[in-house]
Amino acid sequence: MTYERAHLKAMHGYTPGQQPDTPAIKLNTNENPYPPGPAVAHALSSFPLNMLQRYPDPLAGAFRASVARLHRLAPANVIATNGGDELLRLALTTFLDPGKPLGLLTPSYSLYSVLATIHGSPLASVPLGNDWSVPDNTAERWNAAGVPLAIMTNPHAPSGTLASAAGLHKLALAFRGVLLVDEAYVDFVDPEIGHETSTMVAAYPNVLLLRTLSKGYSLAGLRLAYGLGAAELVAPMLSKTKDSYNVDAIAQAVGAAALEDVRSAARLVSYARHRRRIFSSRLFPPAGDGTARRKSIGLSWPDASLCDGSMRRDYGINYGSASVRLRKTSTLWKLSGCLADRSRFQNHRNSPLEGLAAHFPHPSGSSATL
Amino acid sequence: MTYERAHLKAMHGYTPGQQPDTPAIKLNTNENPYPPGPAVAHALSSFPLNMLQRYPDPLAGAFRASVARLHRLAPANVIATNGGDELLRLALTTFLDPGKPLGLLTPSYSLYSVLATIHGSPLASVPLGNDWSVPDNTAERWNAAGVPLAIMTNPHAPSGTLASAAGLHKLALAFRGVLLVDEAYVDFVDPEIGHETSTMVAAYPNVLLLRTLSKGYSLAGLRLAYGLGAAELVAPMLSKTKDSYNVDAIAQAVGAAALEDVRSAARLVSYARHRRRIFSSRLFPPAGDGTARRKSIGLSWPDASLCDGSMRRDYGINYGSASVRLRKTSTLWKLSGCLADRSRFQNHRNSPLEGLAAHFPHPSGSSATL
Repeated sequence: MTYERAHLKAMHGYTPGQQPDTPAIKLNTNENPYPPGPAVAHALSSFPLNMLQRYPDPLAGAFRASVARLHRLAPANVIATNGGDELLRLALTTFLDPGKPLGLLTPSYSLYSVLATIHGSPLASVPLGNDWSVPDNTAERWNAAGVPLAIMTNPHAPSGTLASAAGLHKLALAFRGVLLVDEAYVDFVDPEIGHETSTMVAAYPNVLLLRTLSKGYSLAGLRLAYGLGAAELVAPMLSKTKDSYNVDAIAQAVGAAALEDVRSAARLVSYARHRRRIFSSRLFPPAGDGTARRKSIGLSWPDASLCDGSMRRDYGINYGSASVRLRKTSTLWKLSGCLADRSRFQNHRNSPLEGLAAHFPHPSGSSATL
Repeated sequence: MTYERAHLKAMHGYTPGQQPDTPAIKLNTNENPYPPGPAVAHALSSFPLNMLQRYPDPLAGAFRASVARLHRLAPANVIATNGGDELLRLALTTFLDPGKPLGLLTPSYSLYSVLATIHGSPLASVPLGNDWSVPDNTAERWNAAGVPLAIMTNPHAPSGTLASAAGLHKLALAFRGVLLVDEAYVDFVDPEIGHETSTMVAAYPNVLLLRTLSKGYSLAGLRLAYGLGAAELVAPMLSKTKDSYNVDAIAQAVGAAALEDVRSAARLVSYARHRRRIFSSRLFPPAGDGTARRKSIGLSWPDASLCDGSMRRDYGINYGSASVRLRKTSTLWKLSGCLADRSRFQNHRNSPLEGLAAHFPHPSGSSATL
């Protein structure tokens, strides 16, 4: 006897990145390598114990006010969520009837399709171009498929490619459904690009931006993210579909403190960008303007063990005395094929990272189409 | 232009109990009046800041191990959730196809029907008896209605009535769907009753018990609850339908510490039971065995302002110099009708609480039937 719904029984769940107990260089979950700043430390150490006995503010008022100030928006444009995962799920619950297709760009964050499967919705996938760009006719293809909600990652993971704000404006204007832009990595965009999307909230009734404190603010363990959108778009999630007390009292207090400490956040991001430049230069040697915009955010890597079709785990290698965890990414795995020579990668003499670029060319074709 | 799904547009969301900024005697959200114990204080103050930069354990392994030890079960019988709300929602997502009915006993926690509406499921409600007891033919009525999932609150809120373990065994055996017993208040059952349900987990494949640290452990602000069930019942929620990192790192650490500190938890509950005895004796003067088992857990009260059909807020009264917040409970409101004489209650000379019993007889009929 099983009680699970039939369509769930048939599916595999999303496999989160591993958190090994032993020390490891973690490249598998794109965590920030630096701890959060002093404002977070102070907010945590001064959190009053007796606030725990009461329910938290269900609407996370103080935190949302901080977010609103940061983006020059109103609190009604903001929803606080238990990590970005919750906002993604809430968007499906709120804007997508089961059976209707979820719009995606592929390859993309594999969680999106898992959420669609749980929800009982098919996918309407538009493959990214060979340079990881968003095709010009994306909105038309989603519209033709009757897509009420589409999710895109920008900057894109795992390629790090950034779709410009101008491109997003065009897409939002032409698309008839809700466009959720997952901006988990937006804090790491080079400031000189001047990428700015929060002004879209006032201009488009159908744009929902996802921001998280997991990456740029080094707070992955806290589970705190937020959505930005037109007040009418945010309202049903805020007052109807989210769990009543979705963000705990500590996260609300610590998160507000983190947002107010602009200087620490900027420093964290600046450190990470600096390391990324070094890392990228080894992975992707400068090769003219074609690859100049390809920013390595972290690193996703096909799991060699998937050759057997059995394992669903991250990929571990030894680098000198350190253990390195890499993320399996089954989508990219499918695109790039089996590693021709696993042993060469695993035993690469100078650096396993140097071995990656050679094994990981951009795919010329794609298996996912509308 | 609206993007909200049509059935959501038509609904009202659940209204959480108010958390006034000004000091108030809060009887509206059944929070514990005592702060959590020293183990919680220590776990919070010693939480390592650098754990926040990494994602938490997606399966909350250490916390689930503590739960398993407490109940003499295996970790595979346990799921940790972001408050009880999440487990309730997950049960619908995992075991109930939209369109199929959710089984309820009425009156009950109003959130259940809100979750069913969001999910797109009708209700199959069995009214409680005049003594708040669960009717003998409940399972048969749910089975006849084709109910795949039913939720009951035990001890019942707001009446405080406890359905015996023997009664639950009968219900679980006869019911063909998943029986979710919301035991949010079970820590407050008098120990001399010897009420014990966790042994049902091994005996029934269809029983899911909800426990929370919000009430008995004074941790409502932390958002931490757990489900207990057969491993096969728990598995799809754990590996498929829950958000990947649903419980944050602080809640996992603090929660485990709270569970290990058995003595503090027992003291908190003992204090609360003592106050309840005093409170109950004023509300429900001893009247033989018929009312002896009626335990007032907190107090739910129809919102007089609902007479206008407009307000959806808690009810505030002044008691001497203190402000008292009471919970509006629209279900009970509907059952008991408008207050005949609002002013008498509001200006009750001795105690507003003494005025309650007279205004709040058990309803002889019920508006909610299968």
